[in-house]
Amino acid sequence: MPVNKIKIVLDAMGGDFAPDSELQGAVEFMNNPQNHDVQIILTGDEQLLRNRIKNLNLSVDFEIVDCKDKVTMDDEPTDIIKRKRDSSLYKGIEIVKDAKADAFVSSGNTGAVHSTSTLVLGRIAGVSRPTIGTFFPSVADNPVLLLDVGANVDAKPSYIFQFAVMGSIYCSQILGIKNPKIGLLNIGEEESKGTNDVRETYKLLKASPLNFIGNIEGRDIFSAHADVVVCDGFIGNIVLKFAESFLGILKSKIKNYSEESIIKKIKVGLMVPILKDILQQFDYQKYGGVPLLGVNGVVIIGHGKSSPEAVKNMLVRAKEMVQKEVNKSIESTLKDLIN
Amino acid sequence: MPVNKIKIVLDAMGGDFAPDSELQGAVEFMNNPQNHDVQIILTGDEQLLRNRIKNLNLSVDFEIVDCKDKVTMDDEPTDIIKRKRDSSLYKGIEIVKDAKADAFVSSGNTGAVHSTSTLVLGRIAGVSRPTIGTFFPSVADNPVLLLDVGANVDAKPSYIFQFAVMGSIYCSQILGIKNPKIGLLNIGEEESKGTNDVRETYKLLKASPLNFIGNIEGRDIFSAHADVVVCDGFIGNIVLKFAESFLGILKSKIKNYSEESIIKKIKVGLMVPILKDILQQFDYQKYGGVPLLGVNGVVIIGHGKSSPEAVKNMLVRAKEMVQKEVNKSIESTLKDLIN
Repeated sequence: MPVNKIKIVLDAMGGDFAPDSELQGAVEFMNNPQNHDVQIILTGDEQLLRNRIKNLNLSVDFEIVDCKDKVTMDDEPTDIIKRKRDSSLYKGIEIVKDAKADAFVSSGNTGAVHSTSTLVLGRIAGVSRPTIGTFFPSVADNPVLLLDVGANVDAKPSYIFQFAVMGSIYCSQILGIKNPKIGLLNIGEEESKGTNDVRETYKLLKASPLNFIGNIEGRDIFSAHADVVVCDGFIGNIVLKFAESFLGILKSKIKNYSEESIIKKIKVGLMVPILKDILQQFDYQKYGGVPLLGVNGVVIIGHGKSSPEAVKNMLVRAKEMVQKEVNKSIESTLKDLIN
Repeated sequence: MPVNKIKIVLDAMGGDFAPDSELQGAVEFMNNPQNHDVQIILTGDEQLLRNRIKNLNLSVDFEIVDCKDKVTMDDEPTDIIKRKRDSSLYKGIEIVKDAKADAFVSSGNTGAVHSTSTLVLGRIAGVSRPTIGTFFPSVADNPVLLLDVGANVDAKPSYIFQFAVMGSIYCSQILGIKNPKIGLLNIGEEESKGTNDVRETYKLLKASPLNFIGNIEGRDIFSAHADVVVCDGFIGNIVLKFAESFLGILKSKIKNYSEESIIKKIKVGLMVPILKDILQQFDYQKYGGVPLLGVNGVVIIGHGKSSPEAVKNMLVRAKEMVQKEVNKSIESTLKDLIN
């Protein structure tokens, strides 16, 4: 095995469809000859994983680090380091910490990945708070990255400014967006709008070399005026969860409508497959998870419901972040901004 | 004319479709014999209004208070009292202030109605900040009232608590919801979640006699777990505008899809009328505007794009608020809560 292989740890017990989604996604990833410079290390119950690999007839053999425990959605994020050191999540992050791998990928408990990574890996020099974002579909081809979506509540203006720096570097280096446009989530276009903290953040962004385009209102998140929209984690989390519920209410209203008459039921029957096809464009799976930006290591977090495709794309993202040395760019950019 | 008629001032120059929507809505309202105990006073350019009444063949004659000026969407809300005293908006509110009418209804500049009403009419005793809410469609039959949606940024916990009190009274007296369920917009269910201010608000709500059901996450606004959801105006405004943009992105994605092939264009052609029919359920017009709660007078604010139906429903709401003496209930409830 050549020494320069990129090593990615995949939390095989993480998502709602683990370990099958994880195993199938990893195989899909490895089936691409372009990824033969990557070695995947699975963390999880070795016996279980070997059985699933056999039952699923998967042809690739992975290195497996056996862990007897796993983190669930009910685990308190800050408790993992105390109580679940034999979990696939903790052990996976520890492998990166010990420099035995370059990146960690998980579709498990987001809060737990965030806290454990921050505690175990530490922060990139110059970063006050690591951040998690999410990609929103937009009217343009590129998705919009909203940061922070819940990792940081009551975030100081200087933290939100750093989110903008990290988001800008990520979009530029990983998504290939040249000089990404940065927007500040606010309730009006004018500089004077918003809370005291938001106005303070505006000043920091305006004075920076970032491509800051000003305030973005709620109605313009989808408009793709900005490539990266920054906000406090409290508002970002509410917006994210609210957005995720929109398809639910639409579905519920369609159901009510179809129950009004036979004719309406038939009409809905004709419409639903078309609508499903269209709503695929809202599918988060293709973005392949989101990076936990600011921790001293590459960490990619996926949706609990990650499909094999999503897992594959998360591995692609992790590989890119390692290859393009995004964390080094964050460190040097923040250093330059301070000096 | 009997002295006990309810007098409602309608800002005839307010909405995007003024004065036609306003005139037609007022006629629809007056055509209902149940409303013959109401007298409508229009504020606006008398000559223009008389002409439109004639051209539209409207059969009802209204009292008109002539105003030469009007407030536009570009007017700075706090400037109206200084610069636009001859506007249909200012004069309408002044008529209520002078006790020559019981209520004011407008589909004009929301910020201007809010500021001018607060300055001219003053606040109900015990109210720190008047608030504007919005109705969201829900999976249930009743809409959900979200308060505040932008009138109050950086609102103190005690203000948000008052929004909950006012929202509860409105839902109970006007929408007929018994013991309305109050939720606090937050990023998790636990009492410990959220910003410092949100946690403080939680305590106030929990200790009150309101039917407080705890935190409501972004994903549960539509779920109708709560009848009234309270939050700071910064977040409420972003959520409201974000929600309004959903249909836009859906439309844009449908358009993109239809442009991919002739077959897809045909499919979309079949689907769109059905979808439109379903999306009618998201129509804000039927809720007939929202009350400006906490000002010392009945003020109903409508969407800029109010249809005649919406205007009619705003008048219905105004009449109900006068008849049911909602403001008296707010005053006495707040007094009781303090003592």
